[in-house]
Amino acid sequence: MIVRTPRVFREKQNIETYVSHEVREIDIERQRIRVQRKEDGKTWWEPYDHLMIATGSVPIRIPVQGSDSEGIFGVNTYESGIKLNRFLDDASAKNAVVIGGGYIGLEMAENLIKRGLSVSLVELNKEVMSTLDPDMGKLVSDALIEIGVKLFREERFEGFETDNGRVRAVVTDKRTLPADVVVLGMGVRPNTELAQKAGIPIGPSKGIRVNPLLQTDVENVWAGGDCAESIHLVSGKPVHIPLGTVANKHGRVAGINIGGGYATFPGVVGTAMSKICAVEVARTGLGEKEVQRIGLHYITSVTRTRTRAGYYPNADSISVKLIAEKNTGRLLGAQIVGREGAAKRIDILATALHRRMNLQEIMDLDLSYAPPYSPVWDPVALAARVALKKLQPDT
Amino acid sequence: MIVRTPRVFREKQNIETYVSHEVREIDIERQRIRVQRKEDGKTWWEPYDHLMIATGSVPIRIPVQGSDSEGIFGVNTYESGIKLNRFLDDASAKNAVVIGGGYIGLEMAENLIKRGLSVSLVELNKEVMSTLDPDMGKLVSDALIEIGVKLFREERFEGFETDNGRVRAVVTDKRTLPADVVVLGMGVRPNTELAQKAGIPIGPSKGIRVNPLLQTDVENVWAGGDCAESIHLVSGKPVHIPLGTVANKHGRVAGINIGGGYATFPGVVGTAMSKICAVEVARTGLGEKEVQRIGLHYITSVTRTRTRAGYYPNADSISVKLIAEKNTGRLLGAQIVGREGAAKRIDILATALHRRMNLQEIMDLDLSYAPPYSPVWDPVALAARVALKKLQPDT
Repeated sequence: MIVRTPRVFREKQNIETYVSHEVREIDIERQRIRVQRKEDGKTWWEPYDHLMIATGSVPIRIPVQGSDSEGIFGVNTYESGIKLNRFLDDASAKNAVVIGGGYIGLEMAENLIKRGLSVSLVELNKEVMSTLDPDMGKLVSDALIEIGVKLFREERFEGFETDNGRVRAVVTDKRTLPADVVVLGMGVRPNTELAQKAGIPIGPSKGIRVNPLLQTDVENVWAGGDCAESIHLVSGKPVHIPLGTVANKHGRVAGINIGGGYATFPGVVGTAMSKICAVEVARTGLGEKEVQRIGLHYITSVTRTRTRAGYYPNADSISVKLIAEKNTGRLLGAQIVGREGAAKRIDILATALHRRMNLQEIMDLDLSYAPPYSPVWDPVALAARVALKKLQPDT
Repeated sequence: MIVRTPRVFREKQNIETYVSHEVREIDIERQRIRVQRKEDGKTWWEPYDHLMIATGSVPIRIPVQGSDSEGIFGVNTYESGIKLNRFLDDASAKNAVVIGGGYIGLEMAENLIKRGLSVSLVELNKEVMSTLDPDMGKLVSDALIEIGVKLFREERFEGFETDNGRVRAVVTDKRTLPADVVVLGMGVRPNTELAQKAGIPIGPSKGIRVNPLLQTDVENVWAGGDCAESIHLVSGKPVHIPLGTVANKHGRVAGINIGGGYATFPGVVGTAMSKICAVEVARTGLGEKEVQRIGLHYITSVTRTRTRAGYYPNADSISVKLIAEKNTGRLLGAQIVGREGAAKRIDILATALHRRMNLQEIMDLDLSYAPPYSPVWDPVALAARVALKKLQPDT
């Protein structure tokens, strides 16, 4: 899973890569950084012509006693995944507790179940996967329960019980769950400490503020990836979306510009997808809460149909939720939960968001059809047709 | 596979359905049709306020001796499929010859192979699936050969050899192929004989000419489905695209209008897909030949990548061909051949065609990513990025 090693960087691209080194300070006045070598603690100043900040995100942690006990794992780095894997191989863990029902929490819950553990999941919100509206999130909660996860919703994590430096239980505001192993999946926040200390401005999303070229407000300092913010093309507002797709494009755009070329980051519409067991989940655009916060009037519609022609083997369920503006019919957001073949359809709706398409235009799309892959009316176009009916009940 | 029976039409929708009746003549002056009951040959005139012509398409047949011999099948109706199935159950057929490498021919070849027959396929063009450009069609030809089909390309069907009223061989301009069973898949043409005789105008695509409401040029006469033409939104020209998606929408639009509502058919971008064994095939927009015929200057680019993250199990190949206008970068057409998860991605490009998007805009789309479903750069966005490089070699 390591895309490129330091050696490849050096030999193929003439890029010197320092691993196990940490930047302790940025001096924007004199255009230099203070580097510390972890091996021996030695520090020195390095000058820069251009500085790219790609410090990523840090996992959100609640400071409680016993957080550093044995058996408690975050899975935010390659190494942390390996550590957890080893722990499970060595220890005779029976009870696992996952704290947080986001992408990481759910993927971990699934895989702990597959390893034969008894898995409890604690989620603060009404349903897991809070990037979905609760009505769609419920479908994911149901799928988790179906594979045997004990789900505790609207429950607040409060602390750990430990025994001899080893975790023994997770305490919530409602109960105590026995735990031999705990996985933390409470989300991430942009890692901007270093930038902030140097006086590089942070935006309202708490990510480093950048322009479309990925320049920060400080000369010759660039930022991208999980530590920076992006403009959301539907709301027009800066957002922090810590996803690989965004980070990859940020890096590319900043790199081209630093190298003397010209590229701009186009912004995001908030597209994301995930696989939880056999359930496929995807979202794009704004959720109901975000639409309400902006103040737009809207309708929603959930259409349940099938991923393939009804008579074709393995035609399975797909639910498509659309959110559209009331007077214009313009799509504002979409969410999909379904079985094999469901989630990737979100891309049609993401494209529609980029082009500010309305429900009629989505319904009128000439989408592909073949019995193994779709009903004659693709679920996305059908959802638009159904939502349109709700928008114009008189027609 | 029968969606609605005459009884359901009568009981649930108060629609009288005449099966085994044929319309022999349309009298547009007196607004009536001459109907013949097949059972006893009796004919009579029926008046109409509105007449909807939905005569579909007819299979293309080359008039040669022995065409009506036993063992020769078209598979254009439900009944014809059943007949072929029965024939294969009863007869000890060993050698099958499929004439024509379009959607029907390929699906039949695959299923004859699955039934254990030795299958030859005769194709007039350079590669099968001539709705694709030959470079992409070759990938489909290769897949057919891989499953054991004996493929004879650039070969013209000339006739049958028969024995006692039973087919024995298929003769091409290059060889004689032994045949116990023959499947004809030479495409279809709009079934407009009845309309033409009545003086209802036909368009340049040979389908019945209709306006966006699906009205023909004759008052109170409507047409839709395989017998009618549609406007292609990329070329702006009328085309005949005999597909279920188009027919379904035609029927809906005409029905709403005849019923006193208002609906328009938005036009097509020529999206189609198919499954040939494990190979998924899809296309949208214009092919190279069509672009050349219009006279547009264009670039093409074929990008081969993977359907999933490289490290994920079953990450398999996908080839995306893009055709874009030279000066504007506007997408003109796209073709996809690949493995599981490949074909449905055509819908992103179909949506892009509807909105006249250019390569930069497609590359900039915020498409969904998760390792089980996509690399970080979705194959469609990556293809746009690669094609853009070809369009602007200096940047």
